[in-house]
This record gives sequence, C-alpha cells and structure tokens, in this order.
Amino acid sequence: MAGAAQEVDTMSDESNQQLGITVSKRQNMSEWYTQVVKKAGLASYAPVKGCMIIEPYGMKLWERIRDTFDDWISDEVDNAYFPLLIPESYLEREKDIVDGFDPEVAWVEKAGNDEELEERLAIRPTSESIIAPYMADTIQSYRDLPLRLNQWSNVVRWEATDTRPFLRTREFLWQEGHTAHASKEAADEEMYTRLDQYARLYEDIMAVPVLEGKKPEHDKFPGADMTTTVEALMPDGKSIQGGTSHNLGQSFSEAFDITYEDEQQQTQHPYTCSWGLSTRAIGALIMAHGDDDGLVLPPEVAPIEVVIVPIMTGDGTDDDVLAYGDEIEEELAGFRTEYDDDQHKTPGFKFNKWELKGVPLRIEIGPREMDDEEVTLVRRDTGEELTITIEDLTETVEEQLEDIQVALFENLKDYRDDHITRAESYEEILERIGRKRGYVTCAWCGDEQCEAEVKDQIAAEIVMVPFEDEREEIEGSCAICGEEAVEIAYFAKNY
Amino acid sequence: MAGAAQEVDTMSDESNQQLGITVSKRQNMSEWYTQVVKKAGLASYAPVKGCMIIEPYGMKLWERIRDTFDDWISDEVDNAYFPLLIPESYLEREKDIVDGFDPEVAWVEKAGNDEELEERLAIRPTSESIIAPYMADTIQSYRDLPLRLNQWSNVVRWEATDTRPFLRTREFLWQEGHTAHASKEAADEEMYTRLDQYARLYEDIMAVPVLEGKKPEHDKFPGADMTTTVEALMPDGKSIQGGTSHNLGQSFSEAFDITYEDEQQQTQHPYTCSWGLSTRAIGALIMAHGDDDGLVLPPEVAPIEVVIVPIMTGDGTDDDVLAYGDEIEEELAGFRTEYDDDQHKTPGFKFNKWELKGVPLRIEIGPREMDDEEVTLVRRDTGEELTITIEDLTETVEEQLEDIQVALFENLKDYRDDHITRAESYEEILERIGRKRGYVTCAWCGDEQCEAEVKDQIAAEIVMVPFEDEREEIEGSCAICGEEAVEIAYFAKNY
Repeated sequence: MAGAAQEVDTMSDESNQQLGITVSKRQNMSEWYTQVVKKAGLASYAPVKGCMIIEPYGMKLWERIRDTFDDWISDEVDNAYFPLLIPESYLEREKDIVDGFDPEVAWVEKAGNDEELEERLAIRPTSESIIAPYMADTIQSYRDLPLRLNQWSNVVRWEATDTRPFLRTREFLWQEGHTAHASKEAADEEMYTRLDQYARLYEDIMAVPVLEGKKPEHDKFPGADMTTTVEALMPDGKSIQGGTSHNLGQSFSEAFDITYEDEQQQTQHPYTCSWGLSTRAIGALIMAHGDDDGLVLPPEVAPIEVVIVPIMTGDGTDDDVLAYGDEIEEELAGFRTEYDDDQHKTPGFKFNKWELKGVPLRIEIGPREMDDEEVTLVRRDTGEELTITIEDLTETVEEQLEDIQVALFENLKDYRDDHITRAESYEEILERIGRKRGYVTCAWCGDEQCEAEVKDQIAAEIVMVPFEDEREEIEGSCAICGEEAVEIAYFAKNY
Repeated sequence: MAGAAQEVDTMSDESNQQLGITVSKRQNMSEWYTQVVKKAGLASYAPVKGCMIIEPYGMKLWERIRDTFDDWISDEVDNAYFPLLIPESYLEREKDIVDGFDPEVAWVEKAGNDEELEERLAIRPTSESIIAPYMADTIQSYRDLPLRLNQWSNVVRWEATDTRPFLRTREFLWQEGHTAHASKEAADEEMYTRLDQYARLYEDIMAVPVLEGKKPEHDKFPGADMTTTVEALMPDGKSIQGGTSHNLGQSFSEAFDITYEDEQQQTQHPYTCSWGLSTRAIGALIMAHGDDDGLVLPPEVAPIEVVIVPIMTGDGTDDDVLAYGDEIEEELAGFRTEYDDDQHKTPGFKFNKWELKGVPLRIEIGPREMDDEEVTLVRRDTGEELTITIEDLTETVEEQLEDIQVALFENLKDYRDDHITRAESYEEILERIGRKRGYVTCAWCGDEQCEAEVKDQIAAEIVMVPFEDEREEIEGSCAICGEEAVEIAYFAKNY
C-alpha cells in the first residue's frame, strides 16, 4: 500500500531508538513494564521508595477510569470525604482490621512544632474504621437504609517489597465504597452489583477480560463475611486482582455500634459492605495490551483516540498539507483527537512517539493524500494500513475504533481461555503451572494447608473460587489431600 | 397570594424547630455557621480534632467548584498526582518553605511493622518541594516551557487554634497549580491569569464579589517574589482570603536546580509559579449568602437548582398531584431538579429542609395548581412567591435562577462597597474598623511595624494592597507613622 508511511521511513531519527522500548515484552516483561511506564509518560519514581508520581498521561487514564465508574454509581451512591488520619484506638476497635493492616501502617506521632500527639494517628490504609462511626451517627431508622457512600482518595500501605509503579505502591489512589443495608441479602446484592461494575469497567472500557469469584476463607478482607474479586490473566500467565467487593456482615456494625430501628421498632445491626478499585487497574491495562513498541490503549480508555500526523516534504506543499490537517481535525471533532503539527519533529519521530503512547489510530496525511482527498489510517494494535476518502472518514474511524476495542478484548480472552486447565493431582497442579502458567483449576477441600503446599513449592496460590451457582459440578476429591472436595480452586501465580 | 404554602402552614411539624437553625446569623455568626454546616449536611466533625468529614451535600459543592475550575484550566494545564509524603531533606532544600511551614507539619517517623524510618517524612503542607525536582527532570529546553501542572489533593497543616469546618481545618482538599516559565513576565502573566480565574470562580459561580490584590512583602508565601490574593468581605465585616497565586521567581528553580537551555544554548533558571484554592471556598460561600433559615446557594454552584414539593391533601387528588409532579419534573429536565415525593414527610417539613439546604427555587404543586395547570414558585433568597402557568415554566425558572444569581452577587457587592472606608490616621483606622469593620484603606509606608501597631491594638491586619496600575493615587504620608507612603493598605479583621 502506497501510504504516507513509506515516504518517511528514511527520515526516522536515530535518537528514536533511545526513546523507544529496548526490551521485548515476551522476554523480559518486568523490564518492559518499567520502560513503558516511564517512556510513555505514565509515572515516574518519587523520592520516597515505593511511592510514585502519576504523570499527566497516566493521570488522564485514571481520570477516565474514575469518571466512568463515578458516573455508573452516582445514581445510587453519594461521594463524601473522610479524614486521612485515623486514631489508633479506632483501628483497634475492629481487631481484625488492625491485625490485618498493622504491618503496613504509617504512623504520625508528632505534628505542629514537633509536639508529641496524645494518641498516634494512622494514615488510612482503608477507611472502614473511620466511616463506621459516621454511619453510626447517620443511621437511626430502617428508612435511612441503604446508606451508600464512596470516596476517591489516596491511601498508604507500607509494602515491604516488590514495589512497582501502579502495581504495588506505598501510596495509591482509589475509590472506596462503604454501604449499610437492612439484610444480608441486600448486602450481598450490593457486593455483587459493584463487583459486576468492576467487571464491566475492565471488560467494556479497558478491554481486559476478568473472572469473577470469591477469595478463599483464609484470604478474605479482615473482618469480612465474604470477599469477592475480579481477576485478570496477564500475558505472562500471572493473575492480577483487579478490584474487590466485600460483604462485611455485621462485624463492623457490631464493633462500631451501628444500629437502626426496624419497622417493628426493634434495634438491629445493619450489614455493611465495602468495595474498592485502585490505580493498580492502570498497571493491568499496561500489561494487558502493550507490545514491543510500547503502550496499546483500547479506544474507550484512551486519552487520545486518533492522532493526525502531517507529512511535510518541503516541496512547497507544506502549508496546504497543514491546512488539510486542520480540515481533518475539524471533521473528527466528535473524537478525542490530537493534531501533531509540531514542525520541529520528523514524522518518523512522531509515529514512534504516538505508538509508544498507545494511541489506537494514526492518520497520516501527505501531499498525495491531500491531492486525492484521502487519508491513510494506521491501526496501533495490528499495524494495518487503510487508505480512505475523506467522505468515509468519520464512519471508518468509528468502525475501526470499535474493531480495535473488540479485537483487544477477544485476543486476551482467547489467551485467557486457553490458559485455564484442569488438574487432578498435586503433581499436575505443579506441572501445569510450571509449564504453562495461567489458571489451574482443581477440586479442593477448602483447607488452607492444601493451598500452602502448592504455594511453598511453586509460589502459586488460590486467587479465586467460583461462585456456587456459576461453577461446574465438583467431581472427585481434593486434588491435594484427597479429602472431600467442597470448592473448585483456581490456582495461579499472581501480582 | 393564594399559593400552596398557605394551605400547609398548619401542617408544620414541631420537630422542625430542632432541625432548623436556632440562632440568628446577625447576632451570633459563629454559632450560626456551625449549625448550618451540620444541619444542612455539609460537614461533620472527625475524631481527630481540627479534621472534618465532608458529607455528601458538601462534597457536591466541592465537586461543582472543582469541575468548573478544572474545566477552565484544562486547555493549558495538565493534571498529575504527586506523593503525599515528602522527605524532610526536600523541604529543607527550600529553607524559606521549611521555616514557613515547620510549625504546621505532621511527621511520619515510623511505618511498616513500627519500624523507624531512615529519614522522617512530612505529610505535604503544599507540594513545591516535591514538584520542583520533578520539574528539574522534565525541563531541558526552552521548548519545554511553559510547563503547567496541577493536582487535586489533600494537604495537612497542623493548625494550633480556631479550627472550623471548611474555614480552617488540619486537613483540607485543594488544587495546587505549579508552573515554570522562561521569563519573569510570563510568570507574572500566569500568576494574574489564575488569580483572575479565582475571581471569576467566586464572582460568577459563587456570587461572592472579591478584591484582587497582593499581600504585603512580609506576608508573602515563603520564598515567593509576589503573592496575590482574592479577598471577599463576609457579612460580619471580616475578610476571607479566597485563593492565592504566587510568582515564586527563581528561588525554587535555584534551590532545586531546575534549568533549561535557552535559544542561545545558555543555561537558565526558569521562573516558577504556584496557585491554590481550597475547600475553604465553601466556608466563604456558606457565610456569604446564608440567612436565619440556613444555607442560600447561588444557582450556578447549587447541587439542586429546583426542588418540587407536591402538596397532598388526602382528599382523593393525591395520585393526580403526584403524577402532575412527574410532569413538572420532566418539563425541567434541563435543570438540576429534585422531586421530593416522599410521602412520609409533610410539605412543611420539606419546605424547611430544602430551605436549610439553600435550594434556590422551590416549586409547590397542590390540587389547585394542578387544576389550573399552574405551579407556585418560591425564591429561596427573597421568599417571593410567583404563580405561573406550566407553559411559562422553563422560561420563568431560567429567568428566576439568573435573577437569583445576580441578586446574591449585587447584594453582597453593595454591602462590600459600603464597607470600604478611608482613614487618614492611626486613630481613624482603629475607630473605623472598631465601629463598622469592613476594609479601611490608608496610605502606608510599607513597613511591617506600622501594621503591627494596628494588629496589636485591634486584631486587624493588611489583607491586601491593590496592584500598582489599579490603585488610586497615593495621597499624603503613611497614616500610621507619617513617613513617605508607597502603598495603599487595606486593613481588615480576617478569617
């Protein structure tokens, strides 16, 4: 195809090599990830180890994820803001919580002229223990239920090891929803509703297929009756927990004395839920679709859907080509478009730059396109080129963006489905995870000890257990110990 | 006027008295403020003294302020997110900053299994010292300028006394813009641009008139060349600083070694600016317009512009009235509307509730309105009632909302203009502020000592000094010491 790209191959700068990704995703995903995060302008390191600076392009991704989800929940859920600092005694009222988070808490003991505080304050690792007392003040009658609150905020968890931008940072941004309900059933419904919304956010917006399920008993959120999760398989065969939604039962309402009067004037403890999704989602998004040229973004989440690059040849047509670009940009007003008319950079430099940043579609326009009233479209995901007339422009762009969104999802889903395998024995679990990674499912007795045996051997754990009404029939006994099986376990290495 | 309100007077609940505001704004503004904040559902106290919980209705106000301003700056400014925790050595690189904020810093010295950190970390009181090193990494050439970053975040300043929700809290939400420019002039332009946007935000959105000016030399932001401010006069005659915009000169770029190569390949330090506006704006908004029935919100910032209250009489027309309300709600789809069709509360209760929450317009519909295809409109600011036909509904609502927006602004502006008085001597300054409060202007030599004499006597300070090109001619000598005058000082008591 005689697109504009050919004309500029000879113009590529040598320096592009340094600006681009220098390792293969397949061969060294860890180093590849680090390079993409930095070189695509998503995040950079902060002076405090394990903290990150979210750079403008990364922030735009987070804002799209945030605004989409916020829009989905805003009919039912009220945003609020709760304090960063939580007195130690509040954390301790819910012993499970303090036990769960103690090793990760950052403490403030001095403030204001270096004065020692009477009680030390935790920087919130999560806000159940400060929102629960507010709920206790707010809820009096069954008419006050359900109560649904959400906050978008930063939290701090002092991870000891393996910090990575987005994936595991000592400070991260998230939303945390906190709700109260009159019955276990209503709380369950809330938990599943938010979990489904997380699944939609991954699948429909980020084009990342997920499995929905619950965490094993021993891996639940501290104090929860049930923890549910969305899990996504990354191209290196490791699973990532994409968001969690918990039914906390009555443990928080009892510990924090949240009560309401029911229709029969009886005092009751409500059931509470919490659900959270963090900037970690961006880490999953990067790994899911990126390639050796950098980021690949699904159109729905891309800050820029289409970039227009004019090809200037210096043969007297440059001004006309630039004006043609303005026309194209105007034509595409309904899309998130960037017109890169910077005259200090070569087209080759720009191609590499916007590929690195994962912009789904590139439009190239040179003198030839201008004369023929055409443009050349290049897809980021496949590299396919397409020359179309300007009359077909918006329609084709629309179609191509939809195609890309679907293709990214389907590719990853095929890969994921191909990496769920069944094991009948301990040896098979080890062998399958060792050889192919992905999810290895087996019948399981529910005992933590059986998981530990696999974990010790091969550092894979049970990342989720399918919901009862969605799982296949349990056949045979526990693949590890041979006792009666009560669950299907999904073993995987994970982030 | 035979509006629906008359019909329901007898239905008012006694409990309304407790739910409503019980003190007069004029007689006890401080207690009035506390009651409005709590009873209108804007904020409540957190367990840590001086911190607040921003409740859903308060959060909606902040979201409107945030989204409006974010929209105004988004063409030029990129949002990013910088870490909460700043190493002490970073703060110390800008000695002026650490001196300025030291008494207000909360310190983290232990984190993760209670381990002592190698270097203690400040919870950001502001982020110049962590953004400047990022700028140093990002800026290489004059082509990288201007660089404009902004973040929406929480900050902590450990105020010792007088904490009040929104007005002065130990943790608050804000935006902080940080920019770098090639020349002092470009930095000045940035500083004034953002200051003007703050003024627009107060005047056009919050209907709060402001004065723009600069802070005296001795009251600038630590390290700044110039600090500018928007100041609003509250109905108690005290001024509130509504937002500040600083030209930091080269002090940060020198301290943090931010350099760029100019067009002549010379290494230069850029000029930097910072500018911030916080949840304090909500405090000003509450005080500016509220009355003895509670909050009064200008339509532009109101989460709900119009509330519809059906009057049920129990005479068999209730279902029709409710359906008529649905029709009205549909008619008003272009406005932020709440249809309060809760059948467990009386209209009187609802009138009080929505007045307390400051909703600009109330629509009452009873059987009479329904029969006549009319509605009764009641303005929150004046209490005026207006009966109109349904054909005129959207147009009248639109007009009334515009009227309210203008009236709130003009009222406060008249009051403010009436409270700027001129003093020729120290005694006159004291006398005028003592008698009438407001702003007392005088010729001033520029010496901090002259301000101190007023401050010691009557707790008023120089809240701002008009810009040179906007001020009246300086006549006479310093009103306090009699030396040569170089500025016009605006003295006021302030928040």
